[in-house]
Parts: sequence; structure tokens; C-alpha cells
Amino acid sequence: MTELITEEYQRGVYQAAEILRNAERVLILSHSAPDGDTIGSAFALCRALKKLGRLARVECADELPAKYDYLISGLKTEQFDPDLIVTSDIASETLFGKQLEKYIPTVGLSIDHHPSNTRFAKFTLLDPKAAATCEIISDVLNILGVEYDCHIAECIYTGLATDTGCFRFPNTRPKTLRTAARMAEYGAETARINKLLFETVSRERLMAETLALQTLEFHFGEKAALMTVSLEMMEKSGASEVDLEGMPAMPARIEGVLAGITVKEKEAGVFKISVRTNGELNASEICARLGGGGHKGAAGCTVLGTAEKAKALILEAVKSELLK
Amino acid sequence: MTELITEEYQRGVYQAAEILRNAERVLILSHSAPDGDTIGSAFALCRALKKLGRLARVECADELPAKYDYLISGLKTEQFDPDLIVTSDIASETLFGKQLEKYIPTVGLSIDHHPSNTRFAKFTLLDPKAAATCEIISDVLNILGVEYDCHIAECIYTGLATDTGCFRFPNTRPKTLRTAARMAEYGAETARINKLLFETVSRERLMAETLALQTLEFHFGEKAALMTVSLEMMEKSGASEVDLEGMPAMPARIEGVLAGITVKEKEAGVFKISVRTNGELNASEICARLGGGGHKGAAGCTVLGTAEKAKALILEAVKSELLK
Repeated sequence: MTELITEEYQRGVYQAAEILRNAERVLILSHSAPDGDTIGSAFALCRALKKLGRLARVECADELPAKYDYLISGLKTEQFDPDLIVTSDIASETLFGKQLEKYIPTVGLSIDHHPSNTRFAKFTLLDPKAAATCEIISDVLNILGVEYDCHIAECIYTGLATDTGCFRFPNTRPKTLRTAARMAEYGAETARINKLLFETVSRERLMAETLALQTLEFHFGEKAALMTVSLEMMEKSGASEVDLEGMPAMPARIEGVLAGITVKEKEAGVFKISVRTNGELNASEICARLGGGGHKGAAGCTVLGTAEKAKALILEAVKSELLK
Repeated sequence: MTELITEEYQRGVYQAAEILRNAERVLILSHSAPDGDTIGSAFALCRALKKLGRLARVECADELPAKYDYLISGLKTEQFDPDLIVTSDIASETLFGKQLEKYIPTVGLSIDHHPSNTRFAKFTLLDPKAAATCEIISDVLNILGVEYDCHIAECIYTGLATDTGCFRFPNTRPKTLRTAARMAEYGAETARINKLLFETVSRERLMAETLALQTLEFHFGEKAALMTVSLEMMEKSGASEVDLEGMPAMPARIEGVLAGITVKEKEAGVFKISVRTNGELNASEICARLGGGGHKGAAGCTVLGTAEKAKALILEAVKSELLK
């Protein structure tokens, strides 16, 4: 069984491969606040180009999170004046970050899966149905005839796994699973990577989570669940912002809850509110009532004042949507 | 790219298909305390046999957990006197449960992936490398020439996903991912299933988890983490045994922890201890010191007395293994 591939996309893959083939010195950019997909796709491409005898290096405005160190193992950074600039998983100009802004006007190739891509590059290879940019990179490497090794395979696998919550999220499609299967066959140690990225939790995160869960309160016949994260909890647990990644998803995971709310004290008197909804309610419309926004299933807004005020306002907004 | 399949296994798949083809009235058994794989594989086979014009039904010693209701949607139970009894994912006689024990001597076909299978059946189709029995069932259905529909696909997907923690555990192999991809193409609503099985958490579980996490203590330079679950917590949270599934895995997920310990009060004066280890330590050897046993990475034992005594004894056992 093969995947349905649009002709336009297939043509794009060949064009992207042609652009890469014609380059000698390639600079690849990842987006700021890098995640597994932007790093994985950039380093997969970098390693592949080196195998094809090109000069290549990756730049990113922010430091790579330490847990992704295995992606760069054994890789030497080369300094050169690029004849091609490629972006990997960068949807818009705002995601280059201060240090890399200078490259925006000269990007020759953008490889991405965000439907919102602003088409800043000379040529854009976009598949909005791809679960990860790594899925697209793999197609390009296939056309380039690159011989996969375990390092390239681990880069690609990392992007696939992180952007899908290890194949759990709705963006996972058959092609995602098949590409992951191929990467395992090319030597990606998927069990080691999964354990590192999805199983391991810091002591600080667990403590912050425990403290936050103690504040859980239910409203409107348990249709809304609200959790508070205070500066005091952050201090007590020693957790950093990175440690809290994904925590606002928790209240909405509770059976029967339609709106999961997290009220987080960013600094004294400033509360960042995250709303996650399941099907019936629109998180974006809830947050819009308080000047925020986002997507249907996940949105946010900011409230100034006290935690009590922030909670009262967001609960009022949820109530209005529940009554609609 | 195709999977490496041993000739012996392939021959077994054909033999199993032949046994099924020659039967008219098939009773399929799941193991007691049923999980997604034993139910998924049983109902996939049941639905497939019905499509081929056979009479078929599934029996299980225990009730199906309600979250798996979608696997039996639209399925009518037929009463008949079977001419073939098949077991699905049952590794040994002890897993039939009281009500189904009577069938043990007459099982014609056992389909399983547990290396420990005791070969109680007339013919056993076993692939110890398969992540789930559903992987094997899918091979059999392919040879039987069954036309997959979304129901069969969801049964198979459920077994694959539950036995691998949604493709996270080390047992996930390329074939697992490819079989999952095919099931999605046959109409399995994987996003809905993943949300139901892996995202949703009961309020009772979350409360029990919150209470248990508050008891976390670290020992031996944070190499061991110990969590206590008391009868009082069970009562306060309203959690049942089913709600606590998987909870003993939590302490071992903490960064740097080599032994994660959960001391659970089963009844007044009886403590069930679970040990999970990461690589360096052997959980089975730790628990053997207290008369228990299990696997290298996960083992258990029971201690009578007080919680303090149970904690002291298991910490002493961990210490002895750490010093080895």
C-alpha cells in the first residue's frame, strides 16, 4: 500500500532536491526556542549534505536543549560563506530570532509543514498534512539518493516522535508511522530516544506538578477543571519554564472535563491563563473574551491583578461559552 | 522494505489459517483481567470469521473494561457449540480464569506473543518478537483473505497501541508501526482511540496520584525514589485498583533514579511492593531478597507488618543491590 501523494508536492520534492544538489555550501536554520522537529530536520539535512560532499552547518537563535545532544554527536561545525540558505520547520519571519533575522531576505529554500507558512523563501516546499517537517526531509533525502545511517535516522525519528507526542496526536498519519518504521530499520535506537524524550521527568517538574495538582478545583458540574501555578510553587519546586512544558494540558485530560484551565503567575500581579478544550467548547473564543486567542482546542490570555480575579474572570468566560 | 520473517513463523501463520478455515463454529478466549491486546485480538478474529461466514464469539472470565466498548459495537453474540476453541494472547493455563478453565484441555489453536507460553494448545502460533498478539492476528487475517473494515482495523490497532504504550515501549518494532499504518488506512480512527486510551484520566486516579506523589522520598543520593499508597488515600480519592494501573512506573521515571519503589497498602498490615529499575539495577534480584520476583526491570514482593517496616526492608534490599 502506498501513500496518496499530490503531484504538486512530489514536484516540489524534486525541485527542492535540485536546489540542494546545485549548492556547495549550505547554511540550515532552525526556529528559535527549538523543538525536536526543527532540530531533527535541520541536522538530518546537514548530515545528509555532508555525506554528499557538501559543506553544511546548522544555526539556531537559541541554544539546543541538552536532551537533544545525541543529534549532534560526532558532527563537526564548519565555517563557510554559504551559497544556499535553507530553513527547516520555520513558519514565519518572527521565528528566526534576533541573531538570524539578517538571513530572512536571502533564504533560498524553506522546508516546512505549517499551513501558516508566510512564504518568505525563494522556494517553499510545504506539506501541511505532514505530521512533522522531518517527514518531508525524508522524502527529499530519498530523491537525493542519500544513504541513510543511524545518525540521520535518529534525527528524522526525533522530529516525527516529538511533533506527534510519540504517535499519539491526531496529526499522526500512516506515512508518519511508515517513515518511523524505516528509520528504525536504518538504525535509529527508538527505544532509547523514546525513554529519553517521553519517559524521563525531572524531579523539579514532578514536584511542581504535585503542588499544582493540589490546587485542582472543579466548576459547572465538573465540566471545567482549574489548576493554579504560583511563583511560590516554582520557587519551592525549583522548576524552570522548560520543566513546565505541556503541563497546561493536564486538567483537560480529566474524564468529562470540557475546559481545562491553568492559571499561571508569570510575575507578581501578572497571570497567564491557558485553556484546553475537548470538542464541544472553543478555547479561542473563551480566551478572546479576555483579549487573548489561539486555536479551537488550545488558547491563552493574560490577566493583571490577583489570582482570585484571574480565576473569576476566566471562569466567567468559560461559563458564557457553556451557556451559548 | 519488508520485514524479516522466519520461515517457521510464516509456516505457522498458514497452518493457523488452515485450522480456522476448517472450522465452522469458533469460540475465542481472552485472558482474565483483560487488556487491549487480548480483547482487540479476540474481537478482530471474531469479526473476521463472521465476515467469512463462520459462527464466532468471544468469552472472557472477567468483564471488559468499559473504555473498550467501541471494540464490540454492532457485534451480536451468538450461542453455539464450538467445533474450535482459540485463545488469544493467553500465555498459560492460569490466565483462563475460573469460568473458562473447563476449556483448557480442548484448545485447538493458541495465538500469542509471550515467550513464556506454556504450549497448552494443540497448535500454537507464537511470535515472541511481536509487540502484540494483534500483530500476529493481522498476519493470519491477511492469509485468510479477510477484507478489513474499520471495526477489525480498530480492534487490531487497539492491541498494537496498548501493548506498546502507543508505540513508546522498546517492544515496538518496524512491523508494529507498519501494521498500525495499515489499520489507519483501513479506517481505524486512531486519534479518537489514542485520546480515549492514553490521554483521558479519571478524576479519582489523578487525586490518588496527587496524594501518592506527596509522599515521594529520595534515598541513596537520589538513586532510589519511594512512593507510598495507603488505604486512606484510596478511600479519600475514591480510586479503584483499575484506576491505579501503571502508577508504580512513576518513581522510576524521575531523572537519575535507578530504582523506583511503590509501597502499596493492600489491606491492613499487608504491603505490596513494586520495584522498577533503569538498566543498572536488577528489580527481580531486589525483590527476591524479600521473597518476591519478576523481571529485570519490574518486580514485586509482599511484606507483612507496618508501612515503616515495609519501607525499611525494601530500602535495605535496594541498598544491598546498589553496593554489589
